[in-house]
Amino acid sequence: MVQSEGRIFSGKDVAIHNSRESCWIIVHGKVYDVTEFLDDHPGGSKIILKYAGKDATREYEPIHPPDAITTNLPPEKHLGSVDLATVEKVIVQITDEEKARQQRVDARPSLDAILNLHDFEAVAKLVMPDKAWAYYSSAADDEITLRENHAAYHRIWFRPRIMRDVTKVDFSTTIFGQKTSMPIYITATALGKLGHPDGELNLTRAAAKHGVVQMIPTLASCAFDEIVDAAQPGQPQWMQLYVNMDRNATRRVVQHAEKRGIKALFITVDAPQLGRREKDMRQKYDAEDPAEQARTGGDVDRTQGAARAISSFIDPGLCWKDLAWFKSITNMPLILKGVQCWEDALEAYDQKLAGVVLSNHGGRQLDFARSGIEILVEVVTKLKEKRGITFPNDKFLLFVDGGVRRATDVLKAVALGATAVGIGRPFLYSFSAYGTEGVEKALQILKDEFEMNMRLLGAPTLKDVVPSMVDASNVHSHIVSVPGDNLYNNNYESLPLARLKELKSKL
Amino acid sequence: MVQSEGRIFSGKDVAIHNSRESCWIIVHGKVYDVTEFLDDHPGGSKIILKYAGKDATREYEPIHPPDAITTNLPPEKHLGSVDLATVEKVIVQITDEEKARQQRVDARPSLDAILNLHDFEAVAKLVMPDKAWAYYSSAADDEITLRENHAAYHRIWFRPRIMRDVTKVDFSTTIFGQKTSMPIYITATALGKLGHPDGELNLTRAAAKHGVVQMIPTLASCAFDEIVDAAQPGQPQWMQLYVNMDRNATRRVVQHAEKRGIKALFITVDAPQLGRREKDMRQKYDAEDPAEQARTGGDVDRTQGAARAISSFIDPGLCWKDLAWFKSITNMPLILKGVQCWEDALEAYDQKLAGVVLSNHGGRQLDFARSGIEILVEVVTKLKEKRGITFPNDKFLLFVDGGVRRATDVLKAVALGATAVGIGRPFLYSFSAYGTEGVEKALQILKDEFEMNMRLLGAPTLKDVVPSMVDASNVHSHIVSVPGDNLYNNNYESLPLARLKELKSKL
Amino acid sequence: MVQSEGRIFSGKDVAIHNSRESCWIIVHGKVYDVTEFLDDHPGGSKIILKYAGKDATREYEPIHPPDAITTNLPPEKHLGSVDLATVEKVIVQITDEEKARQQRVDARPSLDAILNLHDFEAVAKLVMPDKAWAYYSSAADDEITLRENHAAYHRIWFRPRIMRDVTKVDFSTTIFGQKTSMPIYITATALGKLGHPDGELNLTRAAAKHGVVQMIPTLASCAFDEIVDAAQPGQPQWMQLYVNMDRNATRRVVQHAEKRGIKALFITVDAPQLGRREKDMRQKYDAEDPAEQARTGGDVDRTQGAARAISSFIDPGLCWKDLAWFKSITNMPLILKGVQCWEDALEAYDQKLAGVVLSNHGGRQLDFARSGIEILVEVVTKLKEKRGITFPNDKFLLFVDGGVRRATDVLKAVALGATAVGIGRPFLYSFSAYGTEGVEKALQILKDEFEMNMRLLGAPTLKDVVPSMVDASNVHSHIVSVPGDNLYNNNYESLPLARLKELKSKL
Amino acid sequence: MVQSEGRIFSGKDVAIHNSRESCWIIVHGKVYDVTEFLDDHPGGSKIILKYAGKDATREYEPIHPPDAITTNLPPEKHLGSVDLATVEKVIVQITDEEKARQQRVDARPSLDAILNLHDFEAVAKLVMPDKAWAYYSSAADDEITLRENHAAYHRIWFRPRIMRDVTKVDFSTTIFGQKTSMPIYITATALGKLGHPDGELNLTRAAAKHGVVQMIPTLASCAFDEIVDAAQPGQPQWMQLYVNMDRNATRRVVQHAEKRGIKALFITVDAPQLGRREKDMRQKYDAEDPAEQARTGGDVDRTQGAARAISSFIDPGLCWKDLAWFKSITNMPLILKGVQCWEDALEAYDQKLAGVVLSNHGGRQLDFARSGIEILVEVVTKLKEKRGITFPNDKFLLFVDGGVRRATDVLKAVALGATAVGIGRPFLYSFSAYGTEGVEKALQILKDEFEMNMRLLGAPTLKDVVPSMVDASNVHSHIVSVPGDNLYNNNYESLPLARLKELKSKL
Repeated sequence: MVQSEGRIFSGKDVAIHNSRESCWIIVHGKVYDVTEFLDDHPGGSKIILKYAGKDATREYEPIHPPDAITTNLPPEKHLGSVDLATVEKVIVQITDEEKARQQRVDARPSLDAILNLHDFEAVAKLVMPDKAWAYYSSAADDEITLRENHAAYHRIWFRPRIMRDVTKVDFSTTIFGQKTSMPIYITATALGKLGHPDGELNLTRAAAKHGVVQMIPTLASCAFDEIVDAAQPGQPQWMQLYVNMDRNATRRVVQHAEKRGIKALFITVDAPQLGRREKDMRQKYDAEDPAEQARTGGDVDRTQGAARAISSFIDPGLCWKDLAWFKSITNMPLILKGVQCWEDALEAYDQKLAGVVLSNHGGRQLDFARSGIEILVEVVTKLKEKRGITFPNDKFLLFVDGGVRRATDVLKAVALGATAVGIGRPFLYSFSAYGTEGVEKALQILKDEFEMNMRLLGAPTLKDVVPSMVDASNVHSHIVSVPGDNLYNNNYESLPLARLKELKSKL
Repeated sequence: MVQSEGRIFSGKDVAIHNSRESCWIIVHGKVYDVTEFLDDHPGGSKIILKYAGKDATREYEPIHPPDAITTNLPPEKHLGSVDLATVEKVIVQITDEEKARQQRVDARPSLDAILNLHDFEAVAKLVMPDKAWAYYSSAADDEITLRENHAAYHRIWFRPRIMRDVTKVDFSTTIFGQKTSMPIYITATALGKLGHPDGELNLTRAAAKHGVVQMIPTLASCAFDEIVDAAQPGQPQWMQLYVNMDRNATRRVVQHAEKRGIKALFITVDAPQLGRREKDMRQKYDAEDPAEQARTGGDVDRTQGAARAISSFIDPGLCWKDLAWFKSITNMPLILKGVQCWEDALEAYDQKLAGVVLSNHGGRQLDFARSGIEILVEVVTKLKEKRGITFPNDKFLLFVDGGVRRATDVLKAVALGATAVGIGRPFLYSFSAYGTEGVEKALQILKDEFEMNMRLLGAPTLKDVVPSMVDASNVHSHIVSVPGDNLYNNNYESLPLARLKELKSKL
Repeated sequence: MVQSEGRIFSGKDVAIHNSRESCWIIVHGKVYDVTEFLDDHPGGSKIILKYAGKDATREYEPIHPPDAITTNLPPEKHLGSVDLATVEKVIVQITDEEKARQQRVDARPSLDAILNLHDFEAVAKLVMPDKAWAYYSSAADDEITLRENHAAYHRIWFRPRIMRDVTKVDFSTTIFGQKTSMPIYITATALGKLGHPDGELNLTRAAAKHGVVQMIPTLASCAFDEIVDAAQPGQPQWMQLYVNMDRNATRRVVQHAEKRGIKALFITVDAPQLGRREKDMRQKYDAEDPAEQARTGGDVDRTQGAARAISSFIDPGLCWKDLAWFKSITNMPLILKGVQCWEDALEAYDQKLAGVVLSNHGGRQLDFARSGIEILVEVVTKLKEKRGITFPNDKFLLFVDGGVRRATDVLKAVALGATAVGIGRPFLYSFSAYGTEGVEKALQILKDEFEMNMRLLGAPTLKDVVPSMVDASNVHSHIVSVPGDNLYNNNYESLPLARLKELKSKL
Repeated sequence: MVQSEGRIFSGKDVAIHNSRESCWIIVHGKVYDVTEFLDDHPGGSKIILKYAGKDATREYEPIHPPDAITTNLPPEKHLGSVDLATVEKVIVQITDEEKARQQRVDARPSLDAILNLHDFEAVAKLVMPDKAWAYYSSAADDEITLRENHAAYHRIWFRPRIMRDVTKVDFSTTIFGQKTSMPIYITATALGKLGHPDGELNLTRAAAKHGVVQMIPTLASCAFDEIVDAAQPGQPQWMQLYVNMDRNATRRVVQHAEKRGIKALFITVDAPQLGRREKDMRQKYDAEDPAEQARTGGDVDRTQGAARAISSFIDPGLCWKDLAWFKSITNMPLILKGVQCWEDALEAYDQKLAGVVLSNHGGRQLDFARSGIEILVEVVTKLKEKRGITFPNDKFLLFVDGGVRRATDVLKAVALGATAVGIGRPFLYSFSAYGTEGVEKALQILKDEFEMNMRLLGAPTLKDVVPSMVDASNVHSHIVSVPGDNLYNNNYESLPLARLKELKSKL
């Protein structure tokens, strides 16, 4: 099966396979036959054909997990090695669009001018490559849930207390027995190298510096061990797991993680199939060569975006009864990531898991799924009613993620019973715009906000952030206004304000 | 009465009747005196006068039901036949506007680039003739209900379940004993040839290919038999019925339909008079020749749009007591289309009908009528309370239509008790933009969405899509915000995001 | 006291009083000394000074009630008559702005193109003089109530009934024993000649033609008798009354009205002081001569707009105990216009009045007063609870006004218990744009809408328009959304629709 | 410690210290070494370096409290005096931007054209220096609470009464035994000289003229005694207090205030740390010299805006138990300013304080803090429930501030139980645009509005403004609409109004 890998080709041998009919490429000195893979490539066939018969390493490297090609291509397409000395160098043409982007990179505001997490996104949007932006920012269907995740926090208001000694405020907490500087963690997000050449390592380094936990994603751009190796001694890391249809593969991954010191296993349960994200799909389509488009016609399945292509191994048959097996292969705390109603949270509790993440996968899976913060209110109410427990609770931890941009958002979740809150995209945007320093700055901003806002809440410690400090009575309101009466509104003449004299004479 | 039809005219005989005072036209080789009909023509008199004394077949054909002229014109105006060899050919002048439209048709994106049902509408709006767009897209009064139909779905949110085996998902269902591939059907919409020369046949063909039901409209552009003939063996079709004041005419139509194998009869009950649709009315007016406008002055009744003109036969006296008669003339299941409150749904149930369609006629009739999905919640609640029945229910089927654009919309209706959901305009836009292939693509998109979203809901079959999977507690909220405080808002200076350095120096 | 009126001046005698220090003007052949009145003139001093020493009749006539000058000026300023032959003719300069307005008047769309009441406003806004538009359209403070009056109807939705014989629909009704063709009336509005030279007579004529009631305003531009004289035999008219501090003046007016056949007396109770309407105030200010502005400095009281100036006679001391006196001077039914809560409606009922108008004066008085339709729901509920009566009720009539633009609005009010609904501004705009024909067209549009919508409601007569036909459960919701998160929203990139190929290549 | 102040320098002695390495400046004839203070200066280092070695008095004077430099700089940096005759005059370069601003100042509309409080803000925004505008208008985080403060009033609607004698209306009231002309007071706001050279004295003078109370801020630009001295005999003034970590300093300030006749002490309890206000922070950053920015890099702590720098003395340890001490040092009524929930209001009542201000510090501290008017509803309800007291109540006064722009806002608060309402920014904008006259005009506008609106409410005195006059049932609604469906909305074609003929032919 792998004997062909032993062959050694010359550059010329490879160069003649430079067409759609026969397309070989070189990556890291290995030769691959990707002819049959062309139409399945998430990034489109055009970009591969550009390197047909050539060395694609420089293009491949930053945006693929190290083992992407070996995993996606059947072994018989791994043809062997090439003598790199005989390979012609590829000269990359830089497009005008890319030049303009580089100029925007040079014009980034200094980190001093970044005042909040929104700012990172504003800069990243301008300086990231289009496809990276599309992949990170896109979400399911009409992206209603994406935005609801943020909006839901705005339906929760504070009831701050006064006349309490807040000279010292302490917003550190303990999760699974380990100290963390803030009640947040860096949640798992895929393909970090799309945004920055160091990918997820940016997060590892910043997490170390600021004392927060990083959750390592199954679909990282960097290799798992690379990320673990980059951690400081004692730096806590968790693992996010997509369960493979091949349970042996999953067992190997889980047991390796435990051996490497991972502190908790977050099993993703909201993604039996990865989402149709139309911005991502449209971006890919727009990027395609018109000639290639015409050729392939209706044959290419546009409904399969990047997410789907890299995730076909995920088992849609994962069930409650699989939990026994997980308990048999690891001693790490088990947490279900993507619980979306109290009934499933109760089941997880009854099954003696360590906790749940109330999450809708950043709005990327089911549109009109409710926000984690809304589900939190329901879960806390019902688990108290059904099992008499209160939150936060060391025996069964509630996490929330999605839509968080401010420490006030986090404090609302904490008041309502969450142990910690996951933040994803803001850190992606931070390193996409500024690398590791960006993530550090983002974490520092959060610390400043925590200090300020805990003082203003009258809460010296997180234990003092209690349910009566928030009014969440509107969290379940999903209102759409009656459609506007355009005829009436167009007739209505808006009142003017007082105007300067000059302006008046000009008008 | 019909003896005049025996006469044969020469082209010259007809050509002299070329004025408002005496206006004859030729259609399909027959001669008609339309002088007195000029001001009643829904499309305005101008377009007829353009063909006064000439052959109007090419203009007439695509936008009229085959028997429109014979039905609307009294028999004595059917003058006879013409010797076509003696008729001068009409040269159609193509306007600049029409040329621009043709260019837009040529520039349609390929079907690959169509990712959702919205996209069809976006393309159709650009490539359809103005009057076709106006007729399809228009609705009653301020079009509040039109938009509410869509908006109401956005007040319903999901409560998805996890850890269920969704390796296989099956979204087929059975309606009136017949299998259908999805819980949707193509609902009845009028005048299909306005959008595409093949009219309703596009729907018949695509329905066959994808295994869904087509409801044939009374006001189809294609003849009823033509549509039935186009069906594949065993392909289920239903019939939508406007009840004629002449009950014998209705009897003939119904019994003919049953004989041709129609599986269910949907009697429209929300349209005793067809709607004032101002976009449609304004379009017609704008299209009129200014000279003609000046001449006719206030004489033309602008309140009678196309809808009214083609529907004057509908009986506004239709009553509950007529149902006995319907039961006496047919064995097809009888369904009332356009039920809008639980009281009438209960009456239909008590009268042992087969079901009801909760619908407001696509927002085209009574503005501020509530959406079908909102009525569904009320009907299910009250029929359970009054008669102890639950839904979906094989004895009494609930259908919903209006405003549907996503499989998630349909799944919400199914969760709340609907057997299937009718979709209309999206398919009109699909074939107006791309013919039959457009409708096929639209159906394929829905299938992709069903597969994805049922997985994400944790529902392997439609039976698993249950009421507790949705939160519809806001569905009855009809909120209009307090009018804006423009003075305050205009004074408020919106916060800026971080900006690039160049941009800053330029500003 | 009036002997000076006997004097006869020459044109030259008058012409020398042409300055701010001594300012005489001629109106209808009479000479008036307006020197001390200059700063009190609602339209500003500049327009009077333009005619200082001259004949102002042409300018005065269209915008003042006939007796305005004699009422506002003390008798000693009525100097006498002038020999008109000796007076120099005034040549009126037409400004560029006025020329542009005249061109817009010529470009009005034909009445055929007017499809709804909104259209009249759209045309009137373009063709009316600025100050007329400002006076008619303006309202109190931030004009929140003005717009809420319309918006409130949008929180009420229909529950139409089906399968009822609506072959014939009859929307006529009886009010105070008199037949009217629709459940609407033309409510009282001031200064009709601002919009059209025939002023309120336009309304009288159209009301006659269409069989509806006109309410004659105290502040009409036309004289009361002129309006009554213009009525057809048997045409019902009502009177709106501002109660004068001089009760004898009020007694004379009321008893004269009764003698002239007025059928009901509507006493305005929501305007002890007429409103600050800032659009109106700003308009006046902008129109002032800068030189005059500089001269007068802070001396002119800008807080007194036109409304206040013409209404200083209104008695802010009017009380419940005054009702006995009203009953003693007239046998006309007495109705209070401007009731705004159930407590006052109950008091009116207990005092055996004929009814109340639930109104906030078209949003022109107290901002954040609730809409009439909202108050109706409260009044009907509470009067049933407190006195066991139901509505509509012949013994105690409920009227509503404010914000009505569609027959559906009226039908909502009727369903909720109103006998009829007052419509004001739409008729002002109708005659401002098209004179009497405009009002007739507006009434015809309403009839068309009533016919259509009663059919669609399943209501052959107004008695069939019952409470269960509407859902008014949201009518008391006064929601203001949480202020927008501009940073988040500005970062969010809206999803695109499919685009034409050309457009793509251009972008 | 202070001996160095005795030294006398020549201009040349000072002039050589003109660099970042050694930076001396002259203010009011004194010499200060500010080298180490450069990076702590709230206005940035650049503006100081511009005056390095020179006389900075003209620049310093308008924007600093008189003792700012002596307080902020340690005594050893107070170097001594300078012989002013030997100092070179500084020539201030006026930027183009400043010239444009001066032109806008000259073009201010006359005070006659100012119709409401919004107008002052519109003018001030255009004529104030950028940093003054940024400091006054900025608020916490996303400025949600800032805007909510205003929006909350819009969720409260009136239930006015009719037929009451409102010939005379009296809106005066009594607070702490002293008469005031309206139920409003001028609340404490910092740094008045940023907007106008006379700073807080503008407020003192206007308050005297119109008979309202001024609350003197701890962080006034003018000296406390200056403000007290400017008051008329018997003019009531209150004091706002930030409690110093050095309690002796606070004792001195409080006892001095009591001696000077201050009538009440308002202790600020919502600001243990002054807020991060990003508009203010961004303004400062933008204003910085790019070269200076580059040099300082990440060293300057941008999270410390002006507010924080001038407020580092505030004690975040202030507690309920400190109240005993306050009672021991003064007999002035004690009021807590910044109470935000009923629990703390109840505690203040139980501790026998004189009242509380329900306030969130103008939205400048904790974002998503609720508005004062919303808290008022909760406090009145709960204190009645817990202690059986009703409001307004002479023993325990409730004040509200934040977001007020209209007398109707104030009347809503009064109806709900407030004794008086604090107004801040509108008066800052009034004097920033027009000096003392601006504030006088603002107060006169409020009086006009009170007179009008109390008449329209049917309330001759403030005692007649009762709870049943308002509907506050929506005040706790914090709704965020479901995010918009952009695809659907972009497809929807808004209905057109009737258009003029010309316009049509052009389009």
